[in-house]
Amino acid sequence: MSDGKIRRPKAETPKGFRDYFGAEVTERKAMLDKIAEVYHRYGFDPLETSAVETVEALGKFLPDVDRPNEGVFGWQDEDADWLALRYDLTAPLARVAAQFRNELPSPYRRYAFGPVWRNEKPGPGRFRQFYQCDADTVGSPSVAADAEICAMLSDALEVVGIPRGDYVVKVNNRKVLNGVMEVARISGPNFERERGIVLRAIDKIDRLGEAGVRALLGDGRKDESGDFTKGAGLSTEQVEAIMMFVSANRVIAKKLAELVAELVEDGSSYSRFSRAMLSFDDATGHPLPTDDEAAIYRNFATLKYLREIVGESEVGAQGVSELEEIANLLAAQGYGADRIVIDPGVVRGLGYYTGPVFEAELTFEILDEKGRKRQFGSVAGGGRYDDLVKRFTGQSVPATGVSIGVDRLLAALQAKGRSTADTAGPVVVTVMDRDRMADYMAMVADLRNAGIRAEVYLGNPKNFGNQLKYADKRASPIAIIQGGNEAEKGTVILKDLILGAQIAQNATLEEWKDRPAQAEVLRSELVAAVRQMLEQSESAPFTLSDLL
Amino acid sequence: MSDGKIRRPKAETPKGFRDYFGAEVTERKAMLDKIAEVYHRYGFDPLETSAVETVEALGKFLPDVDRPNEGVFGWQDEDADWLALRYDLTAPLARVAAQFRNELPSPYRRYAFGPVWRNEKPGPGRFRQFYQCDADTVGSPSVAADAEICAMLSDALEVVGIPRGDYVVKVNNRKVLNGVMEVARISGPNFERERGIVLRAIDKIDRLGEAGVRALLGDGRKDESGDFTKGAGLSTEQVEAIMMFVSANRVIAKKLAELVAELVEDGSSYSRFSRAMLSFDDATGHPLPTDDEAAIYRNFATLKYLREIVGESEVGAQGVSELEEIANLLAAQGYGADRIVIDPGVVRGLGYYTGPVFEAELTFEILDEKGRKRQFGSVAGGGRYDDLVKRFTGQSVPATGVSIGVDRLLAALQAKGRSTADTAGPVVVTVMDRDRMADYMAMVADLRNAGIRAEVYLGNPKNFGNQLKYADKRASPIAIIQGGNEAEKGTVILKDLILGAQIAQNATLEEWKDRPAQAEVLRSELVAAVRQMLEQSESAPFTLSDLL
Repeated sequence: MSDGKIRRPKAETPKGFRDYFGAEVTERKAMLDKIAEVYHRYGFDPLETSAVETVEALGKFLPDVDRPNEGVFGWQDEDADWLALRYDLTAPLARVAAQFRNELPSPYRRYAFGPVWRNEKPGPGRFRQFYQCDADTVGSPSVAADAEICAMLSDALEVVGIPRGDYVVKVNNRKVLNGVMEVARISGPNFERERGIVLRAIDKIDRLGEAGVRALLGDGRKDESGDFTKGAGLSTEQVEAIMMFVSANRVIAKKLAELVAELVEDGSSYSRFSRAMLSFDDATGHPLPTDDEAAIYRNFATLKYLREIVGESEVGAQGVSELEEIANLLAAQGYGADRIVIDPGVVRGLGYYTGPVFEAELTFEILDEKGRKRQFGSVAGGGRYDDLVKRFTGQSVPATGVSIGVDRLLAALQAKGRSTADTAGPVVVTVMDRDRMADYMAMVADLRNAGIRAEVYLGNPKNFGNQLKYADKRASPIAIIQGGNEAEKGTVILKDLILGAQIAQNATLEEWKDRPAQAEVLRSELVAAVRQMLEQSESAPFTLSDLL
Repeated sequence: MSDGKIRRPKAETPKGFRDYFGAEVTERKAMLDKIAEVYHRYGFDPLETSAVETVEALGKFLPDVDRPNEGVFGWQDEDADWLALRYDLTAPLARVAAQFRNELPSPYRRYAFGPVWRNEKPGPGRFRQFYQCDADTVGSPSVAADAEICAMLSDALEVVGIPRGDYVVKVNNRKVLNGVMEVARISGPNFERERGIVLRAIDKIDRLGEAGVRALLGDGRKDESGDFTKGAGLSTEQVEAIMMFVSANRVIAKKLAELVAELVEDGSSYSRFSRAMLSFDDATGHPLPTDDEAAIYRNFATLKYLREIVGESEVGAQGVSELEEIANLLAAQGYGADRIVIDPGVVRGLGYYTGPVFEAELTFEILDEKGRKRQFGSVAGGGRYDDLVKRFTGQSVPATGVSIGVDRLLAALQAKGRSTADTAGPVVVTVMDRDRMADYMAMVADLRNAGIRAEVYLGNPKNFGNQLKYADKRASPIAIIQGGNEAEKGTVILKDLILGAQIAQNATLEEWKDRPAQAEVLRSELVAAVRQMLEQSESAPFTLSDLL
């Protein structure tokens, strides 16, 4: 810059990062505090690891490696070691579990909240720093640990304000897929790659349909644009075995519909299915049983079908038994099939899962950006990962856990109008006479000492209109005014800004006629008068936020 | 590694980073929650900026540039822009204030909690990631804003558990020093460097003494090892003018002692000085007035002395007037000289301060690592920085704020035994029969639904001793046991682990003889029995933690 202008730094967040203001912070905090209470009640202890880990300790477990620096923000320290910002809370837990294995209780139940960083291409609503909220149990091979995570996830969703019926925790088991692959005789050096293709194919079933997935498992698939995706190269027989798993939900829905059709004599006694359940009404046109009955039938039918398709595979049979045990353990605690559903469609992208996998889905509908109705969808996911700690120690340390997508869940609460943070603005004491600032500060001190949120106007007091504009921007319920006249009389004026806004909105409002928008009281009665005005505002039929 | 061994990643935090477990997390959270309540009551809104900023936006404001990468952790992104982890919460606030100047209320009061990162040499108790807790007001030139910050800091310290009398908020003003430098005719291109030397010299007065500081301001100083530090090269006249400021506290103490000596007839009615005050008893041997009286005298004497040494300097006189106004504004709100002290010895290292500077010092004594008594010292500091936002916008945006050293304050609370987080362990339901896991999980579900923290043992249940060891490690108050016999009878056994530990400690303890350490109750009465046992433990004359 040699044109003589001063070069000023740009006041901008880096690309893909953002700031959170006021209620955005307090609403998230209120939600996380409630979730922490649930986790605490389940015996989980908090753990806070640092944001920075060695690249070596973090490992490479991000699902998609096609990103800058393999998806992490990293740098070399002065000793030339590579450090990086954590990309999730699971990798640091695995490191802690290995590092402190002699000190920690075993099993070790821990929860962790905090930001994680991904070096991904930013997009709308997609940021490079975001919050995760995890709970994991390290050191228990028992599916009771998996079941506990599912129950706790269910409790957490309800405690933050997602009512029962508006969510479902879906459970699957990687071992079932491994069993199916055993039946299909897929093994050897390409096993991991082929399993990856199967996992991704299942994820795409909604978009590609069964024919598309079949092509991807076999020779490959040409899309509408003519681009060709190479397939896994499985034999027709192998493909058909895998397709038994890929199409499980459709087949189960059909079987279940047939079963229901047998059971149902008179459809009028049955309500609609929970939207979380597979909507097999489309497939059959039959009337539907009640949610609970349908869910129980469905879990039953799913286990039966999965047992069929894993055939003689030992690992497959084990996978199905684990799912059954999880469902039974949860039912014993009152978490029935209306909340916990066995669903072969849940695969979870991460490669490190070794057993049960879970996903919490919100089943109420919202309008998408194009105004179309759609289910809110997934807000949490997790599963069992028995090999992550082994990376460090060489000894197998079984582990299972769940991660809640904090921003997604917050968005869901906002969509449901369930956000509960206190976002009331402060009482604003205006400044009529700059020389009497000490008096104004004594007023706010009195209000605060009485527990009332209050502040004195600290901008340039010359223009009184600016002070009221400021109070408006602060969503202030009351402005306090004391000019020279009032000071002489020993009084203050209280201006009810909520009522003022309401009167401005509808000046003829009958119900307000007896309530003045402004009152003059003795200075000594300031606190009592403010408290009374705040109480009136709270009991008002509508509030300032209705008008904004 | 070609010796055939598997290369395993090291399970270690990077050098200078650490993990926080259980109570370490909850105690910090409990403290920050209380501070946030105070800030909220003062009308401050939360702001959470991202951990990552552009290096350009962060600027270079760390006090000591003699560090790797100038003290920050930085890297280049894919567009070759330099990004870095924030090193404090002030630089991001300045960026936000500039970026959102049209949206934010003005003045903008915000608070922020969160980790910051410094690329410094780690040492004992010195980490590369640590928490800060800041509150700032942007957009107010009024010293009322500075006074408010001091009052709020005082409230924050008391609300977390530092009693009045155990802390003092010291206030100084950079403008006084600027005035003294004007009197000494220090100006021109070397002004910033010379002011830096003066600031650092004042910081070292305790170690070097006045003679050492005088040498540093003049030709230079040779230390005991013979190393020579080049001086600022000021003339004798200039040095003496500066020394008036450097030695201010000693001179004021002396003057004050003389004043006290005149006032005091009978020493017996005066208590010891607050340790926060300058201990001028050493200087004079005179008896001391009460804390409040001494503090008021001292603020008065300090203002008088400072007004003398700034002489004709306009900026210096303004600095003294601002200090006086801050003291008066605070006194009007009830924050007297026992809590807010004007102290010329406070300089604050950061170069960007332009007006009042503050420091909160804890005045109670602790034992240092060598067992010597010393004052706990500083836990928070801040001041006015009117030029930080200007960097971005070119327009002056006055700002003032404070940063609490979270780890220091936590350590202080621990030293005072004031930490209040709930760290009670969970009730542990043991597993006698692996096949009845569903029954055990139903027990914990019942306990949790009653609000009692509870967990089922999820390790290998074979060795029952391990289960009790686990319960001990979890600081569990009660273990629940149900073997086959109990299950048949429909009962459970409650083992009071707190009482058990107490009996183990002192088996003859008379007061426990009527209270069994173990009870068998009906399964249906589990929750009520656990609740009763927990209540007994709470009312016990000593608790488990006494024994650990």
